[in-house]
Amino acid sequence: MCTPKPASASLTSHVQILMPTDLNGYGRLFGGRLMEWIDVVAGVTARRHSGCEVTTAAVDSLEFHAPAHVNDTIVLEGRVTCTGRTSMEVRVDTFVESLNGERKRVNRAYLVMVALDAETHQPAPVPPLLVESGEERAEWEAGIRRRALRSQRRRENL
Amino acid sequence: MCTPKPASASLTSHVQILMPTDLNGYGRLFGGRLMEWIDVVAGVTARRHSGCEVTTAAVDSLEFHAPAHVNDTIVLEGRVTCTGRTSMEVRVDTFVESLNGERKRVNRAYLVMVALDAETHQPAPVPPLLVESGEERAEWEAGIRRRALRSQRRRENL
Amino acid sequence: MCTPKPASASLTSHVQILMPTDLNGYGRLFGGRLMEWIDVVAGVTARRHSGCEVTTAAVDSLEFHAPAHVNDTIVLEGRVTCTGRTSMEVRVDTFVESLNGERKRVNRAYLVMVALDAETHQPAPVPPLLVESGEERAEWEAGIRRRALRSQRRRENL
Amino acid sequence: MCTPKPASASLTSHVQILMPTDLNGYGRLFGGRLMEWIDVVAGVTARRHSGCEVTTAAVDSLEFHAPAHVNDTIVLEGRVTCTGRTSMEVRVDTFVESLNGERKRVNRAYLVMVALDAETHQPAPVPPLLVESGEERAEWEAGIRRRALRSQRRRENL
Amino acid sequence: MCTPKPASASLTSHVQILMPTDLNGYGRLFGGRLMEWIDVVAGVTARRHSGCEVTTAAVDSLEFHAPAHVNDTIVLEGRVTCTGRTSMEVRVDTFVESLNGERKRVNRAYLVMVALDAETHQPAPVPPLLVESGEERAEWEAGIRRRALRSQRRRENL
Amino acid sequence: MCTPKPASASLTSHVQILMPTDLNGYGRLFGGRLMEWIDVVAGVTARRHSGCEVTTAAVDSLEFHAPAHVNDTIVLEGRVTCTGRTSMEVRVDTFVESLNGERKRVNRAYLVMVALDAETHQPAPVPPLLVESGEERAEWEAGIRRRALRSQRRRENL
Repeated sequence: MCTPKPASASLTSHVQILMPTDLNGYGRLFGGRLMEWIDVVAGVTARRHSGCEVTTAAVDSLEFHAPAHVNDTIVLEGRVTCTGRTSMEVRVDTFVESLNGERKRVNRAYLVMVALDAETHQPAPVPPLLVESGEERAEWEAGIRRRALRSQRRRENL
Repeated sequence: MCTPKPASASLTSHVQILMPTDLNGYGRLFGGRLMEWIDVVAGVTARRHSGCEVTTAAVDSLEFHAPAHVNDTIVLEGRVTCTGRTSMEVRVDTFVESLNGERKRVNRAYLVMVALDAETHQPAPVPPLLVESGEERAEWEAGIRRRALRSQRRRENL
Repeated sequence: MCTPKPASASLTSHVQILMPTDLNGYGRLFGGRLMEWIDVVAGVTARRHSGCEVTTAAVDSLEFHAPAHVNDTIVLEGRVTCTGRTSMEVRVDTFVESLNGERKRVNRAYLVMVALDAETHQPAPVPPLLVESGEERAEWEAGIRRRALRSQRRRENL
Repeated sequence: MCTPKPASASLTSHVQILMPTDLNGYGRLFGGRLMEWIDVVAGVTARRHSGCEVTTAAVDSLEFHAPAHVNDTIVLEGRVTCTGRTSMEVRVDTFVESLNGERKRVNRAYLVMVALDAETHQPAPVPPLLVESGEERAEWEAGIRRRALRSQRRRENL
Repeated sequence: MCTPKPASASLTSHVQILMPTDLNGYGRLFGGRLMEWIDVVAGVTARRHSGCEVTTAAVDSLEFHAPAHVNDTIVLEGRVTCTGRTSMEVRVDTFVESLNGERKRVNRAYLVMVALDAETHQPAPVPPLLVESGEERAEWEAGIRRRALRSQRRRENL
Repeated sequence: MCTPKPASASLTSHVQILMPTDLNGYGRLFGGRLMEWIDVVAGVTARRHSGCEVTTAAVDSLEFHAPAHVNDTIVLEGRVTCTGRTSMEVRVDTFVESLNGERKRVNRAYLVMVALDAETHQPAPVPPLLVESGEERAEWEAGIRRRALRSQRRRENL
């Protein structure tokens, strides 16, 4: 479990074509439905990084930047951004992809996923993230900072 | 739109009995499904406070404290905790309610909801929250603090 | 199980925002979907009154008074109206709630719920309903009359 | 619209194989899901009899006789039992069908369906039911009696 | 298991009224949803013919001839067209049925279903199909031809 | 529309974690649900290749090789294998991916997708597939052969 692993080894992609069943009463992608998909994509990303069953500990800063509409092609991409001893921070970006291939991000979410031991169901150690580029380095450091802010919120009981 | 309004005027309650369709592969309440319910409860709470259509701007600190299982009675409660000019912070607590009436909290989430003008679909002013108790005062101040942390994250581009 | 219990102790509330997935082919709330929600609300109401697992024995006089449309806020309220030895009559009213808070009833249903013993799964005694107001008294008497009509239908094999 | 029409001309059949998504928390067919299917079957039966769009006015005496379980073959059968000027009473029987072809009824429901004029959306006249057998005659008379009991409930405001 | 059985003994019928939840992003019946219904209808047809549990081995030549729209009455009909030792070919036709009773076929699919022994879960023998008309004879022969083409595809590894 | 385009430009990936809602009555992935996902993946693959809206013309040879179970990670991959003037053949492979990263194919399907002109909704020309490897060449030739077999079935009216 201790060989470092790059984010590229667990990148996860998921597509949807928006149907009426995915819309809210305004005719736009229902946020609750999107959260379902995000949770699945984060789960697979974390399974791929850890090689373990995982559970969602927290969803953090799920921000809706733009709406999506019926018949849009939606692409979700999951990526490990930071790791702790037994937890992984996973970023899930959601895009609308136009027919000419251009992508516009409509949502970004960070989730804290915890690896579980197959037998004890207790938190299990995960491979450290092998940072491979400057961008990944910056995202790692931001992840450390987000973790600090999460701890601060817990300490302040917010 | 400017008469202050107490949280008690927009309290929102929602129940579910967990069925297999609500479970994940571990036989526990699927987080994505819970997020769907939370989004609806927050939406109704914010509509009641603002008297306006609303949209979810962000989901912030959705923490899973304990699992829920098939056939559990689930209770969600939405409450306005803090208001800005056009936004409301809504807290949605999720409980498992046992047959003897005891409740155990399994999730707490804060959502930022924005009121929308019926015609322009632009952000619309919301009534200030009328704080009525010490507990509500403390939650308001924590809400101000959470907003500051959200701004800080945005400023730091986290 | 024999201390009388007031209806106020088991009042149950549930909200929905109507989405396309809840509509029939006419663009109105699909009756079958509403029946799903009614069944859940009646189940929780009966669990709260009896402190037992429950089962739906009959749905009686589910009348659609007015349609509901996409994006409407829907409120369901469950209330025990009458009790037998092991059965409870639960009324579930469904309202459309406008943004100014006014409610218009779109459906009323009465369900007969039976309490079940946790071990034998046989019908279990339920607390008698403690009638607390003239309105509750009238509803109780109507419930007795509805039960008589149900028995008459069964006797006449209708 | 006035030529009498036999029940055989609008008989409607529908099958399901029970999947986990159809179960309640006890592992049995969820009543709310069954009501969805019943509403669809009654709608098609009434469309076939009337040649019109229809709406569900009331569900009357939906009784659960026995549970159904995962992987059961479920058969629903809709039949017009009685007609008024613009309304039809439709009976929907639900069976579990075993692999050797035996059927056990698990539910019977009567629904009052109203035909709608395609343009005005107002109630439209329906063909009278052509009664063809003694069994159908008895069901017609029971339907008249059920209608009387429904009127009585409305008159007594139950 | 070896007495021949006519197709009429296992004919299976299923209805739907198209709702928004069944539509794709173009406002037409979503092919994936239709495939769900086809799979259920083929399963019941094959259970009725074989008296056994069954599994879908292949879906073959599912062709979309015309779209269906919201509020359409949809009728699916399943029929055994050809049998092997442990497999059955089932044809599922899907129609849009107009209010005047006319049907227009929108899809035809052939599925290969395999009977399973209740204990070993291994393929189990099925009754031969008793061909009763010229049309059934022609469909049987076409079924034999389709099976040959399927084998050819497998042999050619296509 | 006429510059040849490699399959690599439209490869499409989709993940799921199997939940109870995806299972049939045997506790295995419901074939109908899988077909829903396959239809979406094929649709996105064909949109990416053609830059057009698309429609599913036929599903051809959808074969179930092995079951999948609750909590399995499912991966679907869509790839253009052959092109005509306005149609594309898309292969969708479905795998179960174990926690150690190994994949086992459980289904392979070929779909014929047709590009649609945005204004006329008539079939629109698609870029020819640029074949880049021996494997792609073999798959192209198999695609030509499958098309011939499809035509033969149509000619023979099978």
